[in-house]
Amino acid sequence: MNAEVKEELLTKTYLTPSPIYYIRHHHPVPLLSKEQIDDFQLEIDLTELNGGKQRTISLSIDDLNAMPKEDVIMTMQCSGNRRSGFNIIEKTSGTKWGQGAISTAKWTGVRLSNVLKNAGMCDVSMLQEKDGIEHVQFHAFDGMMVSIPIEKATNPYGDVIVAWSMNDEDLPRDHGFPLRLVVPGYAAVRSLKWLKKITISKEEAEGPWQRGLNYKILPPNVHDANEVNLEEMPGINELSVSSGITTVEPLVEGEPSEIGDIVIMKVKGWSFAGGGRNIVRVDVTGDAAKHDWHTAKLKEGNDQRYGRGWAWTLWEAEVPARVQDDGCVHLFSKGVDMAFNTQPENVVDQWNVRGLMNNTWYHKSKIMIKEIN
Amino acid sequence: MNAEVKEELLTKTYLTPSPIYYIRHHHPVPLLSKEQIDDFQLEIDLTELNGGKQRTISLSIDDLNAMPKEDVIMTMQCSGNRRSGFNIIEKTSGTKWGQGAISTAKWTGVRLSNVLKNAGMCDVSMLQEKDGIEHVQFHAFDGMMVSIPIEKATNPYGDVIVAWSMNDEDLPRDHGFPLRLVVPGYAAVRSLKWLKKITISKEEAEGPWQRGLNYKILPPNVHDANEVNLEEMPGINELSVSSGITTVEPLVEGEPSEIGDIVIMKVKGWSFAGGGRNIVRVDVTGDAAKHDWHTAKLKEGNDQRYGRGWAWTLWEAEVPARVQDDGCVHLFSKGVDMAFNTQPENVVDQWNVRGLMNNTWYHKSKIMIKEIN
Repeated sequence: MNAEVKEELLTKTYLTPSPIYYIRHHHPVPLLSKEQIDDFQLEIDLTELNGGKQRTISLSIDDLNAMPKEDVIMTMQCSGNRRSGFNIIEKTSGTKWGQGAISTAKWTGVRLSNVLKNAGMCDVSMLQEKDGIEHVQFHAFDGMMVSIPIEKATNPYGDVIVAWSMNDEDLPRDHGFPLRLVVPGYAAVRSLKWLKKITISKEEAEGPWQRGLNYKILPPNVHDANEVNLEEMPGINELSVSSGITTVEPLVEGEPSEIGDIVIMKVKGWSFAGGGRNIVRVDVTGDAAKHDWHTAKLKEGNDQRYGRGWAWTLWEAEVPARVQDDGCVHLFSKGVDMAFNTQPENVVDQWNVRGLMNNTWYHKSKIMIKEIN
Repeated sequence: MNAEVKEELLTKTYLTPSPIYYIRHHHPVPLLSKEQIDDFQLEIDLTELNGGKQRTISLSIDDLNAMPKEDVIMTMQCSGNRRSGFNIIEKTSGTKWGQGAISTAKWTGVRLSNVLKNAGMCDVSMLQEKDGIEHVQFHAFDGMMVSIPIEKATNPYGDVIVAWSMNDEDLPRDHGFPLRLVVPGYAAVRSLKWLKKITISKEEAEGPWQRGLNYKILPPNVHDANEVNLEEMPGINELSVSSGITTVEPLVEGEPSEIGDIVIMKVKGWSFAGGGRNIVRVDVTGDAAKHDWHTAKLKEGNDQRYGRGWAWTLWEAEVPARVQDDGCVHLFSKGVDMAFNTQPENVVDQWNVRGLMNNTWYHKSKIMIKEIN
């Protein structure tokens, strides 16, 4: 079952309540027996170290609980969020998400770097140079496999955790009980649920979610994935800068507007970028043809540590908007991240076969003159 | 004196030869006496540690030379590169750079993190939590002051170095002799030349280059810097994704073309993104109206470590281009980085008072029918 968050609830609270947190599953949710849960051991496989002599370690939830705890507030976004915006140009394959395949929670667990250190993994530069270890792979109860680069896994500022708690409660079954990975700044697919085993490796994880088409962004001119060599293309890790408009209301309710009228609209939304890049500005316009941009007021999430902005920033703006010939006002938003990357305007230049990472200007219209529509 | 690299030389070699490396000075180049050079000591000020008891350490070039050496190949780009592209919309303040305020060199020196460790700086998380240290400031012989976040300074994958060599020779006077900072992935202004002193601090460096208007990107709707509160805006550190076309030639020289003809053009250029984000694709079109994108072949620089792509990637493409009514072909390029950020299309939506970081689609035209022009 896949389910997105309703637009009007998306920015109602900063943390998304667990019951409405978006859901994207690749397989049926694993149903673990009481025995499997009671006897649960996270397996860490370090065999590829030191010339390949078998070496695995097991950690119980109690073992993990004995390590220093970390909280990370992180926004997860499906790489296919806003995919439906692409289908206007040409159909893409995948779930027709609106803007709601994104949610934010407080996750609690232990640092992956500590888990690896506890298992006996030594200096990382040695790992790379001596043993050629470049990736950490993760295996789940439902058969999913993903990996992340060793640099992200061990970076002291990377904040990757192995989590057992979501919004101060045990992980719900839908969100990975008993244990999931949380990889801040990366596409949600890398935050593997129902985590069973961790393997350090020279290679990326096998399978379609890491090496296949599912998470690869093809060029806009490619309409058949067979035309390209997928191995030459990196999978999605860090997300690009994006934003969404969740509500648009006239600042003052009054007389019905006429075509050409300017109405001040109160606009709210979210903006988010991958890699920990904080949102430094959101531009909003109600008259795109005139490039009439207004700077939004950044709200909750605006105080995240510089370069560790793992969660979205909410925003509000009061924007003059022109009632267009179709009887609607049309609002557009574009976020700007700390590297001053911003969102591209046109969908046609971003379109890709799998409909991934549509981060074009967010468009939302509101009917002002009902008779026309 | 400021000087950009001539377009036709920009991508002729991967490393820019030191004599043609672009130059951007804020002040006259300091002329150090023989005594100043012979007695040169880099000062490290750790006074803000441990409650503010004065604590400074001095290191000679020989001291630095005794530490493990590092090479970093890094592209430096002036934040004002491509500024002239903004002036078409409305005049901006600053040097009217084309695409040539960018160059790449091999820098040799020692890791800043080792320099700080040698000076007695302990665990970074302690620094932040106990002493509130958030920045490392750098002071130069010419009066320049800049700072970088403590996370960048101490990140094991940040590759910040204190360098004394450029392209395997002593630093030229124009490029910071005897010592400069090299901050990969950041705007060139942070790679301070003529480095004299390093200070760890709770605060950003003082002065216009860090806190003032000079390196702050204002919203496109702001035409007077007095309208905004500069303190609320972060200065430029990481650069956004950009590209440039350096040469455009018909693949086959032949008969003069006619308007409407399609001519295959051989196009070469560069692409670069900040923050170590590798370039994963460059799209080129010779018919922008038809969104006729072609994927460029990535050449030198395409093999940098994932997430540590500190230098540009060169590219080539063979692109069909339509001879337009003005007798020219018009080529556009847009790079895509590993976070799948790309370049925005229109200058008008990116324009800012100081003309900083114009990373819109790169446009280059070539006259095909001389009589019209």
